[in-house]
Amino acid sequence: MSCCSVAFAGSELDRADHIRSDPERLEVLKSPQASLLLLDGLAPKLDGSNGLKWGRLKDAPEGAELVFLGMRLGFGCFAAVPAEGSTDPAYSPQETMRRTWAAIGLMSAEDLAIYGGARSLVDWHARHTFCAKCGSPTVLAKGGWQRSCTNEACKAEHFPRVDPVTIMLVEHEGRLLLGRQPRFPPRRFSALAGFVEPGESVEEAVAREVLEEAGVKVRDVSYIASQPWPFPSQLMLGCHAFAESAGLLIDTTELEEAHWFTRDEIAAAMAGDETQRLLTPPPVAIAHHLLKWWLDQ
Amino acid sequence: MSCCSVAFAGSELDRADHIRSDPERLEVLKSPQASLLLLDGLAPKLDGSNGLKWGRLKDAPEGAELVFLGMRLGFGCFAAVPAEGSTDPAYSPQETMRRTWAAIGLMSAEDLAIYGGARSLVDWHARHTFCAKCGSPTVLAKGGWQRSCTNEACKAEHFPRVDPVTIMLVEHEGRLLLGRQPRFPPRRFSALAGFVEPGESVEEAVAREVLEEAGVKVRDVSYIASQPWPFPSQLMLGCHAFAESAGLLIDTTELEEAHWFTRDEIAAAMAGDETQRLLTPPPVAIAHHLLKWWLDQ
Repeated sequence: MSCCSVAFAGSELDRADHIRSDPERLEVLKSPQASLLLLDGLAPKLDGSNGLKWGRLKDAPEGAELVFLGMRLGFGCFAAVPAEGSTDPAYSPQETMRRTWAAIGLMSAEDLAIYGGARSLVDWHARHTFCAKCGSPTVLAKGGWQRSCTNEACKAEHFPRVDPVTIMLVEHEGRLLLGRQPRFPPRRFSALAGFVEPGESVEEAVAREVLEEAGVKVRDVSYIASQPWPFPSQLMLGCHAFAESAGLLIDTTELEEAHWFTRDEIAAAMAGDETQRLLTPPPVAIAHHLLKWWLDQ
Repeated sequence: MSCCSVAFAGSELDRADHIRSDPERLEVLKSPQASLLLLDGLAPKLDGSNGLKWGRLKDAPEGAELVFLGMRLGFGCFAAVPAEGSTDPAYSPQETMRRTWAAIGLMSAEDLAIYGGARSLVDWHARHTFCAKCGSPTVLAKGGWQRSCTNEACKAEHFPRVDPVTIMLVEHEGRLLLGRQPRFPPRRFSALAGFVEPGESVEEAVAREVLEEAGVKVRDVSYIASQPWPFPSQLMLGCHAFAESAGLLIDTTELEEAHWFTRDEIAAAMAGDETQRLLTPPPVAIAHHLLKWWLDQ
């Protein structure tokens, strides 16, 4: 599966990481011609043709920290770290997510990738203004790819988080195990998923999550595809595994329901047939691509 | 490749994650029979037969935070978060690493996995005693799988980090690209590697790192195997890719040297032939397993 067929991958910005460690070049790049990705809190702002809205660096809020996203057409591209804690109801997390998802449905694949990467970064900065080691304030460093503690006795360096998450198609005798979380829209089912923990491989995390959530032992875990997911900053690791048996023991603190679905049911739901007992995940989710891969097998 | 053939994977502890959210069961598990993994700072302590040394909970330093590692033989297994900042030279980072690597060479695969997972966790706690969002003190929660901010107005929840890292065999006309970092022992070469950043897939991270470090464009990135790496808490994602061409442009801030090596050179070095121009990575490293996989192809 091509890495760029999944949403939020395929950014055309050149990350130009050598520039991050070069304060002089970074300063020169912060010219009046430099581009500023305009955000509405953490939600994207779209122009008349549903493209991401870009402004100039001078449009950044006074004193805002600036993250260097990369280079495009010879110019530096930046995003401003949003201030935390607006009390305007239009900026509540729920309202921001509603606006975000409405915009995501309209955006091109290239813009989704730029937005996703920028969102993860600026959100991390907004939530990491203090040093986890000593409690002192931190400042943005290396063009936004680091934060540094301002306490001379500590000087800890902190880096943006990327949290690996396994998401897996579990197969048994030609059927797939899909589950639904309480927060899903009605009838939506998707692949089981969970964070990789310290001290385990991807394959072990897949086996543990399926056993915890559905009571099923798996074998022959294989990796299929990955996707960056910017809510807030996951690396989705899409896998396939075979179940040893079909009996389920659902952990209802994690899943509302889980069932085995036939190839025909999944194929019909993926084709848009709304009479099926399940609705499949939208194309923006890696689970959609995993199901497509499985049907194409 | 089996997930458990790599070092630091294959722990036999049952993580029993449902217990983490159950304060009453956790308290009951903290019985006099509960096991405490004994550590020497962050280094492992070994018994007479080079097994991990286990004590009882009562052996934990007074007031130490306790991490619930999981269940074994019906008993809870814990580790104590070490105090930061000993000035004893025996606990300098260099001396601790020296002792750690000496012990790693002696330990069984099962013990390595338990030690690695425990080390990542307790080290994360020791370095995250303050809230990155507001600067207030944090306390251990959920048996050590979370830290919670003590500031009632913040209450942010923080989770142990796992940082995904790509490590890749790059192939061109039957030869492999291997490089050496300045910190490597003399003549040691290994696979190129780098952290996955926000906004990119595994496959994109592989392509970016190889281009940045060696100036080589790659195609057809495929995933081979993964490994947890506890220094301090990486998830190594082992991949293979084909180079478009053989010309190299080495980033000397990252690599001291990089060359294309033939199958015969690598096979001889892996077999222990010390007359070759390279020494290959030790079995504890996933790079060793990737090379073995490639030679077996």
